[in-house]
Amino acid sequence: MLREFERNKPEDKESLNIEIKALREELIGKLQAMRERKLPVLVLLEGWAAAGKGSLIKELITSIDPRFYNVVSPAVVPENESRYPFLYPYACAIPENGKIMFLDSGWMENVVRKYIRSEITRDEAKRRIRSINEFERQLRDGGYIVLKLFLHISQEEQLERLETLYGSMETRWRVTDDDLWQNREYHQFLKTYDEVMEKTNEPVKWHILDAKKRKTAVRDALKLLTKKIEKALDKGRYVGEPFEEKFPLVEMPLLRDVDLTPVIEEEEYKKELKKLQARLSELHNKIYERKIPVILCYEGWDAAGKGGNIRRVAYPLDPRGFDVHPIASPLPHELNRQYLWRFWTRLPRTGHIAIFDRTWYGRVMVERLEGFCSEKDWKRAYNEINEFERQLTDWGAVVLKFWIHIDPDTQLARFTERQNTPEKQWKITDEDWRNREKWPQYEEAVDEMLKKTSTKNAPWYIIESNDKKYARIRTLKIVIEALEKACKDHFKEMMS
Amino acid sequence: MLREFERNKPEDKESLNIEIKALREELIGKLQAMRERKLPVLVLLEGWAAAGKGSLIKELITSIDPRFYNVVSPAVVPENESRYPFLYPYACAIPENGKIMFLDSGWMENVVRKYIRSEITRDEAKRRIRSINEFERQLRDGGYIVLKLFLHISQEEQLERLETLYGSMETRWRVTDDDLWQNREYHQFLKTYDEVMEKTNEPVKWHILDAKKRKTAVRDALKLLTKKIEKALDKGRYVGEPFEEKFPLVEMPLLRDVDLTPVIEEEEYKKELKKLQARLSELHNKIYERKIPVILCYEGWDAAGKGGNIRRVAYPLDPRGFDVHPIASPLPHELNRQYLWRFWTRLPRTGHIAIFDRTWYGRVMVERLEGFCSEKDWKRAYNEINEFERQLTDWGAVVLKFWIHIDPDTQLARFTERQNTPEKQWKITDEDWRNREKWPQYEEAVDEMLKKTSTKNAPWYIIESNDKKYARIRTLKIVIEALEKACKDHFKEMMS
Repeated sequence: MLREFERNKPEDKESLNIEIKALREELIGKLQAMRERKLPVLVLLEGWAAAGKGSLIKELITSIDPRFYNVVSPAVVPENESRYPFLYPYACAIPENGKIMFLDSGWMENVVRKYIRSEITRDEAKRRIRSINEFERQLRDGGYIVLKLFLHISQEEQLERLETLYGSMETRWRVTDDDLWQNREYHQFLKTYDEVMEKTNEPVKWHILDAKKRKTAVRDALKLLTKKIEKALDKGRYVGEPFEEKFPLVEMPLLRDVDLTPVIEEEEYKKELKKLQARLSELHNKIYERKIPVILCYEGWDAAGKGGNIRRVAYPLDPRGFDVHPIASPLPHELNRQYLWRFWTRLPRTGHIAIFDRTWYGRVMVERLEGFCSEKDWKRAYNEINEFERQLTDWGAVVLKFWIHIDPDTQLARFTERQNTPEKQWKITDEDWRNREKWPQYEEAVDEMLKKTSTKNAPWYIIESNDKKYARIRTLKIVIEALEKACKDHFKEMMS
Repeated sequence: MLREFERNKPEDKESLNIEIKALREELIGKLQAMRERKLPVLVLLEGWAAAGKGSLIKELITSIDPRFYNVVSPAVVPENESRYPFLYPYACAIPENGKIMFLDSGWMENVVRKYIRSEITRDEAKRRIRSINEFERQLRDGGYIVLKLFLHISQEEQLERLETLYGSMETRWRVTDDDLWQNREYHQFLKTYDEVMEKTNEPVKWHILDAKKRKTAVRDALKLLTKKIEKALDKGRYVGEPFEEKFPLVEMPLLRDVDLTPVIEEEEYKKELKKLQARLSELHNKIYERKIPVILCYEGWDAAGKGGNIRRVAYPLDPRGFDVHPIASPLPHELNRQYLWRFWTRLPRTGHIAIFDRTWYGRVMVERLEGFCSEKDWKRAYNEINEFERQLTDWGAVVLKFWIHIDPDTQLARFTERQNTPEKQWKITDEDWRNREKWPQYEEAVDEMLKKTSTKNAPWYIIESNDKKYARIRTLKIVIEALEKACKDHFKEMMS
């Protein structure tokens, strides 16, 4: 890509100024329409050090009302310090509907630098590139307007600019060792940029700007941005098609075929609980020390016993090492972003445990059944979620998903009991009763969800919870087994 | 405090277990009432390393539904790395109404450690203690239930515990050099803890727990927490009284006495704008390099020209070094916290500029006039805001506040123009017209605000904006002058 890039003829400043002025006017109009139509825009600017990303952004935003854009430049943290998946800073920064975000170097630069520094293996680089493809597609399919620009300059040009920056006391501090290193290693960077850009040219295409010619670059960027928004305005907010990807799946039974009779005796329950909680507590120490992130997802019928189950799992954990995230219906600022955003922002740090009381699977249950999203949206979600969870397990996270299961009679009994016990009444709402009437539709949705999203790397477990005590013991055993395995694997890796 | 602390007699495990069980039951009931009444609770746990903060928290949360509490342990970042005011991690973590938060060591530990390490001067320690007093009072006055516990053990006990931890491979990694250093320096810590606790025993009192006796500590903590919540439930949500504190103030004129005639010629405007923006751009480099945080606050009449003014100030800034925060009416999760929370979470990093388009002063304007808060609340706010801003300037921030001022006729003219220009119609709403009818009430509120909150460290500037161009030039000049002064002062400090 870069290597075939042809520099265009010297620029005529005068005519460019006129062009740029006109384009600005045009862009303002488009942006206003974009705001009214509540379209989100993400502009990723990558490029060589000193290629002028900052000043280009400046040129792009001058005519924009500051209330409607923001500029993000995620600090590039060294791998060993980073406590989150590598897409985390970008996924947390995506703009809300009607806003435009400029990202000053992002996921591409991240991969390229770390790869050249051998901070990540070739395989890891491949995985990250796959994640990038998935991330960009999910944004596009979620109605985001994504524009990717690369500011290109030659080795000589870069050296010259660095020299000028270094020359003035005002700007000397801006020249980092990294920049000088990049100039020395220009050709290796060129090769790697090209390679990564080739592989990330779909679903969102790259646009290379000749950054030596500053005004040309501004003109071209303005043109591209305006065109991109115009296209979206004509076609209306894009909704991605459902797609098929084969993830290695675990066979799941239908809910109706699950045997809910298992129970546990009070005596044994107490004994087991004590033993398992003690073990889990030890393991929490281990995974904390080895910096293994853990994500426990709870879904299930109302009154199935999620809360009590979570409490028994949480009890032995060091309170400083876990968080419980109760997931209610999204707040306005959450609704205004891609649906996974509010979960990205709640991911645990490495070595920590995040327990989600209800999860992103709301997309294919309540949002599907209540019509909060389009059919295409929830049908697409199965694979989007599988991708999201693979990104988490690629990062090294243990991801376990529990469907806390009961039958309708048990639910009715518990609803009635809640209704009749004053200190439990707050737990039961009219909505619970309404949902109960939709049991068959929910069962169908859940069966489909379990079938399509129980991946080998992030499997579902149906927890028989007619006997809550039995359910707690079973959940604890599953968590413990998974953490023991994770610790072993982590050790193997260290040794290899 | 600690030095006079008397250890109570050896504990009788049996009777304690019974007591604890009973207290748990009681607490559960109180917590439920607390949730229903939407009271926020903040429990600060300080104490010696290895005193058992973690396990105490564990004991406290066992009986709590995980959806209603969270545990926070802010990473103690070394001063030179920290990019925010020292209260920032705590202020950003405060719980929302109806939730309980456990803070595993916080602002007290922060001050004590940094002081003993001589990472902060005695004066800085004093300033921080004052900030702590202000912060705790503001939480209490905002209806927060705050409980402060200190877990106390002797030097021998601490050594013993560290040894045990060190003895087991499972837990060895938990023993940090810091911990050993604290044990060696036990007496200096004891003295300093005492000193700081003396000074932070108001408005929220400290409770010292004998942490050698684990069960006694649990019992006492449960008792204190239950009592605290009970008291709040009886008295209802606390609303603090307005209070008088003398801040050094800058004399401000009444709005009606401001001469709005000044104008600037197009020619001169262009010339000046260019010159000043170039200068501001240089200064942005300087403050970025010197890590000086800058906070620009914009308030003013609708259609006074805030947006255009902000744009002219933002234009020359490096987009990577500033953010514009448009402040609309608070979102649900913001309404559910102390009113300054949504501004704490938007503070700039050192070296960055945050531009607030409307600010925390909404408290004493719209919230006052629309009755969104009680009279006590907004009357208290003047001093709370002065304290907040002093905390920012103590941190080293430049805080400038602009009232963009026009007269009613000018506003009417601009409203009408917006109404009649299609691409400007989105800027004018019925609310603007409603607010306009309340001009006299607003003018009174603004006059009072300017009078009471124009402190020497964070002054107000009334910007005559009947001529928007004049207003922009004037604002730029003020910003430039302030940044030049800040750079000079910063240099002086380095030299001293």
